[in-house]
Amino acid sequence: MTSSFFPPQRTLMGPGPSDVSPRVLGALSRPTIGHLDPLFVQLMDEVKSLLQQAFQTDNELTLPVSAPGSAGMEACFVNLISPGDKVIVCQNGVFGGRMKENVERCGASAIMVEDTWGEPVSIDKARAAFDQHPDASILAFVHAETSTGVRSDAGALCALAQERGALSIVDTVTSLGGIAVEVDNWGADAVYSGTQKCLSCVPGISPVTFSGRAVERIQARQHKVQSWFLDMQLVMGYWGANTKRAYHHTAPVNAVYALHESLLMLQDEGLEHAHQRHWRNHLALVAGLEAMGLSMAVSPEHRLPQLNLVSIPEGVDDAAVRVALLNDFDLEIGAGLGALAGKTWRIGLMGHSSCTRNVLFCLSALESVLTRQGADVVQGVAQAAAEAAYA
Amino acid sequence: MTSSFFPPQRTLMGPGPSDVSPRVLGALSRPTIGHLDPLFVQLMDEVKSLLQQAFQTDNELTLPVSAPGSAGMEACFVNLISPGDKVIVCQNGVFGGRMKENVERCGASAIMVEDTWGEPVSIDKARAAFDQHPDASILAFVHAETSTGVRSDAGALCALAQERGALSIVDTVTSLGGIAVEVDNWGADAVYSGTQKCLSCVPGISPVTFSGRAVERIQARQHKVQSWFLDMQLVMGYWGANTKRAYHHTAPVNAVYALHESLLMLQDEGLEHAHQRHWRNHLALVAGLEAMGLSMAVSPEHRLPQLNLVSIPEGVDDAAVRVALLNDFDLEIGAGLGALAGKTWRIGLMGHSSCTRNVLFCLSALESVLTRQGADVVQGVAQAAAEAAYA
Repeated sequence: MTSSFFPPQRTLMGPGPSDVSPRVLGALSRPTIGHLDPLFVQLMDEVKSLLQQAFQTDNELTLPVSAPGSAGMEACFVNLISPGDKVIVCQNGVFGGRMKENVERCGASAIMVEDTWGEPVSIDKARAAFDQHPDASILAFVHAETSTGVRSDAGALCALAQERGALSIVDTVTSLGGIAVEVDNWGADAVYSGTQKCLSCVPGISPVTFSGRAVERIQARQHKVQSWFLDMQLVMGYWGANTKRAYHHTAPVNAVYALHESLLMLQDEGLEHAHQRHWRNHLALVAGLEAMGLSMAVSPEHRLPQLNLVSIPEGVDDAAVRVALLNDFDLEIGAGLGALAGKTWRIGLMGHSSCTRNVLFCLSALESVLTRQGADVVQGVAQAAAEAAYA
Repeated sequence: MTSSFFPPQRTLMGPGPSDVSPRVLGALSRPTIGHLDPLFVQLMDEVKSLLQQAFQTDNELTLPVSAPGSAGMEACFVNLISPGDKVIVCQNGVFGGRMKENVERCGASAIMVEDTWGEPVSIDKARAAFDQHPDASILAFVHAETSTGVRSDAGALCALAQERGALSIVDTVTSLGGIAVEVDNWGADAVYSGTQKCLSCVPGISPVTFSGRAVERIQARQHKVQSWFLDMQLVMGYWGANTKRAYHHTAPVNAVYALHESLLMLQDEGLEHAHQRHWRNHLALVAGLEAMGLSMAVSPEHRLPQLNLVSIPEGVDDAAVRVALLNDFDLEIGAGLGALAGKTWRIGLMGHSSCTRNVLFCLSALESVLTRQGADVVQGVAQAAAEAAYA
């Protein structure tokens, strides 16, 4: 007979979901009210405003899509692309490849700009792609590649798109809340994120924001958006500026409570402080890992503080280490993805997971497991190195 | 300054979301674990098996789509339809119209079979549509129309589709858990539902099930599914039979906990008992409403026990009554939708909301508000009539 499920208390230091604060879990389980309840409509307005702060934008069309980040991505593509369009897609990891899929499924063609995994997107290559395809209507790229732990220069890429009269679509799934996402300063046009990374909320909904230019393009469409569920003209009727909200779909009410609470926590801490915290913990983790003799897979200037790519030492069994961390320490770290599978681990320090306790715990658990597996690590120095980095 | 949101404890007797059991809210807020954690993979298997029981099917491809019912609907359409297909859509309320939108956005043509709102789908008209369009490849209809409170004969419609060599797509958003949904007995091919109606779970994910025939059609597709997020061939890699699950998107982990718990509650009660409970409470509510002098808008043989359409008495202000119920009694009932807006109320008795307490409370609150509004209702008899119906 099946019975109730009581999950263990894991420490989530993979590529997301990250640890969810008890404050957020508490909000999640408050009594459900109707998705057209006047009090829920007020809450929606607060969520929009808190998301604007997090995205650093005045964009009116800023809201959470009622589905995970992959659907937030799809919402940006299906609303801005019409069949026959040309879209320049910069790929430097797994998620650029997913963008290509989205473009092609919209009946458009994807001009791929390929960069080495572990390196940022090259502005020069993107510029060359525009030179070759001046009629490209969109430039799409990933700000913080979850598969490689690399940050690209979103401001420069959005500026390039504007200069060429194109719109930009930016993936900030892993960046929002962890490093600066400056939608208005960048001049980005369609930006999507996730809740389960640096916002430390449960997975399942996806913040998005669209610039005035993007809204104009949506309103000028000749061809209906291929997804009814993600059609922003319909979604706006529910999330829009009118007090009278038109029913579109049933919003995930409790998930919106949770997002509201996590955004409040971010507001309370302050964006700057949150970013500084992510950097501090990152530097301490790296100091500890390097003291242990491990090496980072991304060069320092391109690293994301919230997602740390560690090279797996030769001879070490990738899966065995992760299984031992999970089973013996209830600690989850991430496997490598795509081209980096088996070669790297991804250690997340995202949102609520980015704290001193997790840094020290992870170093201690990893040292213990690697030692047991016979790996050649320097023992007994990682914790002190991390603590010194905090000082 | 924005602060934490503490919703009131509403009684949810609209068209959904319905009251969520404390057991389900408790499950929802358990600690988040990774979406590839072996324990989560086990939970996914249990959810699939519990969904098979609820849908009364052996279909292997049975899982919750990670987004609300509208996305479950879209998942069925985009996976089974290719551009140029002909789809017969039976419309007897709002949601048939949404099916048409889905069909057309897939580049297919919708052959509409229109029935009066408040009446079930006519099998004869559907048959005539097949006579006129023998090449139609799909028949789509709504089992339990949420906008009208009407049940259609799903078994007869699915049999018709099979007889004509077409697949069937069935909307069971409002029926699952409230009245019998017999996917295998019907011979239905793609069936979607919601969590926030008779399953009494929070809104946000959508159970779907696909027959072997449907899976064959998906596997034989020449044209990629237009939605990457909803592409069942990709989703199967994550929810599929293999122990090794391929990452597709980040599952809404906590929502899956909640669905698991709500399906356990349904299993504990037993499908038959749950359906009987919905009938008992429905009959009591109707007895009370009619004793009060109100009349039901749907004829008895087509009524859904979980969604009761009440005609608004002449001269009564629709919105004023609903606002008073919400503000003075924390009681939500539903407005009419589409063609029935302003003419009917929709009183839900779904899942956890379908209980004696809610029936008696609703009758009492409604009588009080209608009396205050000067409506011509018979006073002081509704409760006794309802209690007599239970006896």
